[in-house]
Amino acid sequence: MAFKLTVLGCNSAIPTVERHPTAQLLNANERFFLIDCGEGTQVQLRKYQLSYQRIGHIFISHLHGDHYFGLIGLISSMHLLGRNKDLHIYAHQQLKAIIDLQLAASNTELNFPLFFHSIADDKEQLLFEDEAISVRNVLLNHSLKCSGFIFQEKKSRRKILKDKVEKYNIPFEKYNAIKDGSDWLDGSGNMIVNNEITIENTSAHSYAFCTDTMYNEALIKKIKGVDLLYHEATFKKELSERAKETGHSTTFDAATIAKKAEVKNLLIGHFSQRYRNLDELLIETKETFKNTYLAESGLTLDFNKLYS
Amino acid sequence: MAFKLTVLGCNSAIPTVERHPTAQLLNANERFFLIDCGEGTQVQLRKYQLSYQRIGHIFISHLHGDHYFGLIGLISSMHLLGRNKDLHIYAHQQLKAIIDLQLAASNTELNFPLFFHSIADDKEQLLFEDEAISVRNVLLNHSLKCSGFIFQEKKSRRKILKDKVEKYNIPFEKYNAIKDGSDWLDGSGNMIVNNEITIENTSAHSYAFCTDTMYNEALIKKIKGVDLLYHEATFKKELSERAKETGHSTTFDAATIAKKAEVKNLLIGHFSQRYRNLDELLIETKETFKNTYLAESGLTLDFNKLYS
Repeated sequence: MAFKLTVLGCNSAIPTVERHPTAQLLNANERFFLIDCGEGTQVQLRKYQLSYQRIGHIFISHLHGDHYFGLIGLISSMHLLGRNKDLHIYAHQQLKAIIDLQLAASNTELNFPLFFHSIADDKEQLLFEDEAISVRNVLLNHSLKCSGFIFQEKKSRRKILKDKVEKYNIPFEKYNAIKDGSDWLDGSGNMIVNNEITIENTSAHSYAFCTDTMYNEALIKKIKGVDLLYHEATFKKELSERAKETGHSTTFDAATIAKKAEVKNLLIGHFSQRYRNLDELLIETKETFKNTYLAESGLTLDFNKLYS
Repeated sequence: MAFKLTVLGCNSAIPTVERHPTAQLLNANERFFLIDCGEGTQVQLRKYQLSYQRIGHIFISHLHGDHYFGLIGLISSMHLLGRNKDLHIYAHQQLKAIIDLQLAASNTELNFPLFFHSIADDKEQLLFEDEAISVRNVLLNHSLKCSGFIFQEKKSRRKILKDKVEKYNIPFEKYNAIKDGSDWLDGSGNMIVNNEITIENTSAHSYAFCTDTMYNEALIKKIKGVDLLYHEATFKKELSERAKETGHSTTFDAATIAKKAEVKNLLIGHFSQRYRNLDELLIETKETFKNTYLAESGLTLDFNKLYS
């Protein structure tokens, strides 16, 4: 099933003509999760022809503007374009007052239900769960209270083989139990083991989004082995002091966390605007962690095609 | 002296990839006034290589998001880039709380003085004045309390003719009085009339910015004869009912106001996203008012070259 991440922006702090602030869209089996929403995100979604009305859940890491200044505009456009389906926002509590005040200033009563879910300042929690995926926050170490997010797809139930259904004459009402692993006792009293009538379904993908944060070893066990880690790499390694002072990471920090957590792939982003040539950051990161990608606007990573 | 307007965005309500929401930069003799600040304005300023640190005064017409959602990002970037000079914002009072709440959420103490000047809901006032220009608000008729702005350059003082200064041996300390119109009594007791020793300086430019508003004849006498009127024309004239319902104007409304107010030039904007070909709106407007321009992003109008 589809599990794809599209990068909508990768710059830190200040938007430029070429580099937009942080925002990503995760398509997990046609559930659309927006992660962070810097200024201009709604236009980036349009640019890459990603319908913003399909977004059901928005996760905001923290309240520095480059991670959320585009949210009120997106909500406003959803409203003006006639949305009526639910929207869920997961963020630190203060964002609710900011949204409410802006809606009140324009006398706007949204024509869709907006559910605000407050992220605790100091707790890691399950934020969302349905039959296919769960989303948890992880505490990051930044100059402002900040959360990363782990998207964990659930292992799909086993898939029943059609020819075996016919062969053993299995009735429809038994499918659910068999998908969950039950064996099948046929009409003649023969036990058919589950492995013979089902195959394993696709693997369960996992994605960890970690920005903004300084180097933080506490993160390692929480993101262990994920398919893809997005970790900020605001600076090159020569600016490690600056990174510490500002609550950010270097390329080397990101690669070290990826390596120690034995993640399968690494995506770096949140680049300081001082860097014109981002390939230099990629090369530096790959010295420590080979399977690294640069989070450039428009990049789409298909988890079914990533190194696994 | 320079008197130039640059359009940064012209769309109504919803930003698209090609058309940005309302924002304009007026350069009045190297005083930089930003008028409205829709989402993405800071990037538009960068795109057209207009330094946002030179902006001293920002005027916000009203609190629909397409006119101010870019303001907090602009303020934030000014701060991050080390601004220390004063910034003045003129807007309806609620905007102050919105700005304050967002700065507090990120623990930001601006490193420059931000002065907020509240625009009264129901009064027309002088908002800004110095030796070269004054700015007043005018009440518009929209679905939300909304102000237009009139920028009136002051008539420059008369210019002293260098050859006459020498001929009549006029001392430096008399220049100011002569620039203001005084005659000159020379050493032999001869009265030299002011017209002989000075010439008129350049004319005083005027600009009226009027969006969002429905057709409103009360506006006519207030903007009488301005060099340039920006008047919204959200809809083509066939949608005049829709314009009234939403507190907006048609091309015909804008042209009629321009004609009745005997303005010299008209700039139309705030186009509904339904229109792909804006030339159709221009043609329609020109049927009633010939000297009309389309407010497309990047357009710069030099008042010294406009029809006068």
